[in-house]
Amino acid sequence: MINMFKKELMHVGEMASGVKLTVPVYSYKPEQSTAPNVYIQANMHGAEVQGNAVIFQLLELLKECNIQANITLVPYANPIACNHKNGEYTLGRFDPITGVNWNRMYHFDDGIIAPFVEQHIDATEAEIQTDFEQLLLDQIEDKLDHNMWGLTTGQRIAYQLQRMAHQADLVLDLHTGPISSKHLYCPEYIKASASYFDIPHTIFIPNDFDGAMDEATFCPWWSLQQAFESHGRNFTMGKGAFAKESFTVELGTQEQIDLVVAHEDALSILSYLQYKGVIAGNNESANLPKDFLPQQMTRYACYLKDYKALYAPMGGMVDYLAEFGKPLAAGEPLARILRMDNYSSESSVDGGPLHNICLDSEVLPILHFASASVNQGTELYKVFINYFEL
Amino acid sequence: MINMFKKELMHVGEMASGVKLTVPVYSYKPEQSTAPNVYIQANMHGAEVQGNAVIFQLLELLKECNIQANITLVPYANPIACNHKNGEYTLGRFDPITGVNWNRMYHFDDGIIAPFVEQHIDATEAEIQTDFEQLLLDQIEDKLDHNMWGLTTGQRIAYQLQRMAHQADLVLDLHTGPISSKHLYCPEYIKASASYFDIPHTIFIPNDFDGAMDEATFCPWWSLQQAFESHGRNFTMGKGAFAKESFTVELGTQEQIDLVVAHEDALSILSYLQYKGVIAGNNESANLPKDFLPQQMTRYACYLKDYKALYAPMGGMVDYLAEFGKPLAAGEPLARILRMDNYSSESSVDGGPLHNICLDSEVLPILHFASASVNQGTELYKVFINYFEL
Amino acid sequence: MINMFKKELMHVGEMASGVKLTVPVYSYKPEQSTAPNVYIQANMHGAEVQGNAVIFQLLELLKECNIQANITLVPYANPIACNHKNGEYTLGRFDPITGVNWNRMYHFDDGIIAPFVEQHIDATEAEIQTDFEQLLLDQIEDKLDHNMWGLTTGQRIAYQLQRMAHQADLVLDLHTGPISSKHLYCPEYIKASASYFDIPHTIFIPNDFDGAMDEATFCPWWSLQQAFESHGRNFTMGKGAFAKESFTVELGTQEQIDLVVAHEDALSILSYLQYKGVIAGNNESANLPKDFLPQQMTRYACYLKDYKALYAPMGGMVDYLAEFGKPLAAGEPLARILRMDNYSSESSVDGGPLHNICLDSEVLPILHFASASVNQGTELYKVFINYFEL
Amino acid sequence: MINMFKKELMHVGEMASGVKLTVPVYSYKPEQSTAPNVYIQANMHGAEVQGNAVIFQLLELLKECNIQANITLVPYANPIACNHKNGEYTLGRFDPITGVNWNRMYHFDDGIIAPFVEQHIDATEAEIQTDFEQLLLDQIEDKLDHNMWGLTTGQRIAYQLQRMAHQADLVLDLHTGPISSKHLYCPEYIKASASYFDIPHTIFIPNDFDGAMDEATFCPWWSLQQAFESHGRNFTMGKGAFAKESFTVELGTQEQIDLVVAHEDALSILSYLQYKGVIAGNNESANLPKDFLPQQMTRYACYLKDYKALYAPMGGMVDYLAEFGKPLAAGEPLARILRMDNYSSESSVDGGPLHNICLDSEVLPILHFASASVNQGTELYKVFINYFEL
Repeated sequence: MINMFKKELMHVGEMASGVKLTVPVYSYKPEQSTAPNVYIQANMHGAEVQGNAVIFQLLELLKECNIQANITLVPYANPIACNHKNGEYTLGRFDPITGVNWNRMYHFDDGIIAPFVEQHIDATEAEIQTDFEQLLLDQIEDKLDHNMWGLTTGQRIAYQLQRMAHQADLVLDLHTGPISSKHLYCPEYIKASASYFDIPHTIFIPNDFDGAMDEATFCPWWSLQQAFESHGRNFTMGKGAFAKESFTVELGTQEQIDLVVAHEDALSILSYLQYKGVIAGNNESANLPKDFLPQQMTRYACYLKDYKALYAPMGGMVDYLAEFGKPLAAGEPLARILRMDNYSSESSVDGGPLHNICLDSEVLPILHFASASVNQGTELYKVFINYFEL
Repeated sequence: MINMFKKELMHVGEMASGVKLTVPVYSYKPEQSTAPNVYIQANMHGAEVQGNAVIFQLLELLKECNIQANITLVPYANPIACNHKNGEYTLGRFDPITGVNWNRMYHFDDGIIAPFVEQHIDATEAEIQTDFEQLLLDQIEDKLDHNMWGLTTGQRIAYQLQRMAHQADLVLDLHTGPISSKHLYCPEYIKASASYFDIPHTIFIPNDFDGAMDEATFCPWWSLQQAFESHGRNFTMGKGAFAKESFTVELGTQEQIDLVVAHEDALSILSYLQYKGVIAGNNESANLPKDFLPQQMTRYACYLKDYKALYAPMGGMVDYLAEFGKPLAAGEPLARILRMDNYSSESSVDGGPLHNICLDSEVLPILHFASASVNQGTELYKVFINYFEL
Repeated sequence: MINMFKKELMHVGEMASGVKLTVPVYSYKPEQSTAPNVYIQANMHGAEVQGNAVIFQLLELLKECNIQANITLVPYANPIACNHKNGEYTLGRFDPITGVNWNRMYHFDDGIIAPFVEQHIDATEAEIQTDFEQLLLDQIEDKLDHNMWGLTTGQRIAYQLQRMAHQADLVLDLHTGPISSKHLYCPEYIKASASYFDIPHTIFIPNDFDGAMDEATFCPWWSLQQAFESHGRNFTMGKGAFAKESFTVELGTQEQIDLVVAHEDALSILSYLQYKGVIAGNNESANLPKDFLPQQMTRYACYLKDYKALYAPMGGMVDYLAEFGKPLAAGEPLARILRMDNYSSESSVDGGPLHNICLDSEVLPILHFASASVNQGTELYKVFINYFEL
Repeated sequence: MINMFKKELMHVGEMASGVKLTVPVYSYKPEQSTAPNVYIQANMHGAEVQGNAVIFQLLELLKECNIQANITLVPYANPIACNHKNGEYTLGRFDPITGVNWNRMYHFDDGIIAPFVEQHIDATEAEIQTDFEQLLLDQIEDKLDHNMWGLTTGQRIAYQLQRMAHQADLVLDLHTGPISSKHLYCPEYIKASASYFDIPHTIFIPNDFDGAMDEATFCPWWSLQQAFESHGRNFTMGKGAFAKESFTVELGTQEQIDLVVAHEDALSILSYLQYKGVIAGNNESANLPKDFLPQQMTRYACYLKDYKALYAPMGGMVDYLAEFGKPLAAGEPLARILRMDNYSSESSVDGGPLHNICLDSEVLPILHFASASVNQGTELYKVFINYFEL
């Protein structure tokens, strides 16, 4: 038996020529959902395309899985970003008109928390869950509902995606870095989940809302839990009504599609979904492993405050040296910057043509800038400090 | 006698080829400063060039004025933005690599307020002024001082400008809108000053820091005044040690240089500076009016919350109809959107080819988008509601 | 009675997300075409939108005209260009991936001329007309027909438009300049037609094919006529089988929609169409003038070799001074370039802050660059020299 | 003894802010030049940075070589292109204002050939060489000399580079492909030289001038030789006065700096230079190999007409499959295009989600597009057909 995913087109915008932009939504609902519902989207940033291939492989693999909950899969989440090339590359991180990061336009107004807690201080956990989810959905509906002043282009896309995500318990937003190792943004309260992904680097993030999809789906619940706690009613984040898990999954390097690697990434996600009971495991199909289990690997993690960006101390041409995921000792060069304008056959003028870029503490390199040429102040590398094994 | 302005070059960055970017700084110091010191910059956003022409005219006019305080004038504040063309236009509002708005990278950490108030609860007003200004400068120095992780490209520029601005009492940041009337952002506590500019529209802004130059220079003092007040010590914003005034002056439409209009704008600024005592008035030169006085005009204002953006409800081609500065009745069209993809000789299909864009309350149109073609969700107009005469 | 234009959607391309790009085609065919057939398109360059509004007004006016020939109207000819914004403006002159000008991708292979003439040296004029038109269409079909190596994005659009244009006798390609007066590109052999447009400036162009729509439709016929002539058989360009007229109509300034001006431009085009017999005139509708007649105006013209571009001799901020369409004497400034980096209170350093840009012969300014800031070498103005009255 | 290269800065342009753009020129002149003079430049296209690193390694290696001729090395040939980022990548192939390819702006007016041949029909070969080189230089000087109408931004850069290149006999223009193997553009008349580079793929190009640096330096001489031949005076291209060799060296993939690979590329160039006698070989330094000799490798070549571009037959996400430099049989997929908008759990709708891109003849893949997402009509791959071993 093959699970049939339903396909729908969601209308998310209109360009100047009148062309309508749509996003395909693939969904499966078992007769009864007995496990956490799942929402997975890809390609909110235009150049970060590999998630589309992962959704392809997930759809192929899920055909023969024993699915226990609703699953919604959304590739091409942002057709404007995906279709916008300048030169040969995709200008995909921000709205080309306004500069606003497409992944900073989701909605959460923490002003809703206090009144809700007051109203529900004696409600059952089930009521809290139902009513708060409804409140979050109402907030989005209210935004999307045509108001006189309108919405920005990015909000119109983001809110429609968020409306689907709020109806799920497990949310995966598939991104990539520029040139990057695989890494995972994971809320601090569900550390255990990080080990079920085949991803060697995890950043644990706190309850700060900055407009991203993952934050927009877990921060409201975390804020709610904390507000109840301050009123003397204790729930545990990640459990019961608060069993909300959201991740930003960074699949590696942008501007690349690799269907073979996408198959591996799909297995990694299915490992997590089996752990959460969304798929039953014990597969009988010859096309599937018996169970989706995480791979053995060293998994490093750090807290968000220890995930550091290094900005180029000078303009120049960069030979990136440090390998991702390999601890780099203090004083070892991450990169060499070539400055041919300073070359001299004689002694070094203006510091000479080659400059090693070093740090004075051990780091774990995670990603680097996408181009070999940088301005002074361009983000060169992102690295873990104070990292630890999971 | 001609006042001689000193010219210095400030190094603000380096491009990939190694080319060094510099900003010219023109300054004049009288033997003794007996009035508020002045800092004026222009062209932080790349396409907003008219401020450079205004600084040109200010320099020409100030030659023969009786100057009572230090004046620093900085054209071309952001050479990266100014030099970045995509097609025929300047991509100037945000860093083309990151999308971050160049005028959202100034620094203010309100964590410095509480400790300062505690330490200075019994200090004299003069001590407070000196010490707090020094604290603000130290904060900037600390950021600029080479630290291991570096600074972004935009921070390096912004912090160097801010260091100069913190040493002044009156700060004018010269901008323009896209296609725009002249308008002024003015802190709420110095409403009277707005009437000294020859600018018909003023937005009164509260004490919220969002990274802009004007906020970065007045918010710290306002927050300080409020913190002292909550400790029972009352100062008045705009007076004594707290006589700090910062404005964003929107000179009209971007991508335009007009030296004749720039002369008028310079007179408008000199009217404000004479009002503040920075220049003495009673000029004797044949090249100057006897006094710099504001023009008679109807000046409208509103609060920031009532300065509303209208986003395009559909994609299409826009015939902008509403005139700037002329009250538009509820239901009157601001714009018509043409949708040739919906044209039909017959009855209207998909709403037909022409759509009036109306609002259900009276508004005062201030600016509109720079292009005639828009996506759904593009910012179409900005307007005042609940406006009043000054 | 209302003439009903048929609307069809032409599929011209696909973006990365799979979204299909279509172009609306409006066409009217009288029972019998007794006059030259007409093809009019607009907005091949993305920012040049006013032609869409002109097509709107043409459709409105043509409803009640007495139409004698086939008319095809194509707004939004290039949806990729029209939808591509970088910052607030449309990057519309060239493919953002390759840089190739969208109006340099039409097809003409002059290798077809010699064999055709050999084959048709004794054919009737009617046969020549029919067979050569078919040959041109076959060439395009051959290109569009899926071949193994494919077509560029721009060719796919251009060839589909050209296929329609080759079936017409009169071709109008509606463009605009950057900031510009109205002007007309007109083949040298149909000078008389230029006076039927309400356009004060005309450039007469020779038989050189450089990839533009107008050239792609008249150059093949001109080359054919010349080849016959060299074989001793004389036809007159603009007459009989060779009655082909193509114009690039520059409607003024880009990035603007003005429906009132578009109505005037539509009347101007109808004046030309009535002159050519496409519409009968002697209108009875109250919505139309009795006849579409050209306005009285001074019409200046020059040859293409005398339509000169002036490139900026330095980088800087430009105050454009010269008015369009007004003869400017030798030595009078077209523009002033402001260089605030060279300002000095003292004598002029590096030439000082203001530079007049002059020419040593009389010129007629036609258009200037769209932005007030230029690099050294940016096209500043385009002007007529050696111009004359029509 | 260390050869000292002289460094000079060449002023090539000015940006809007007034910043002056310079290009560093490194040159060495032995007491007497007894071998062909050499000109090597890099980075005319902004993203193609690896040539700068190759020039660095050449400078390091040439320090201890026995140099027999003038050598001029120019990294960062085009600072505008190199400094222009849109998003994280360099928009470097064309002027961002006009779209014109930076490597299509060099000068050659073939109108100079006929008069020169007439005048020199009886001149000595040495006179021909001297006078024609001077004529080429005069042509450039004339263009650069300030004329009333000015030059475009790109011409100003190109002509200054070309002036240096015309004074050399061997010209190497260092480029890269998008994602690419190493390959070489080589004039047909000097096939033997191609085997001295460690580059496995060569394209032999004819005498067609299209504005590129290599063409601009060899086409004039080739045209001259052919014109003399048609007047009955025979010279051999590549010999005597006509010993001019120009190459475009494609070093691999753009947006990358690798100093180790650059060292290999420098050795490859030195192998060619030793073959031409520019460096003497028989090196004594411990830092150098005794001789610079070409590596053993299979070198494939084809003629320019057989260097084919394949354009994407549909929009979508591309998994590039074909390896560079490995013959691919007819019918084998070069790439798979993923179309998630066409996914269906059922049978294939719209052709389904995966499309193999195949050709019906054997090809040698050389390079592919830089991004994984393409529009219909984007250049997907470039391949050799009808290729042969050198």
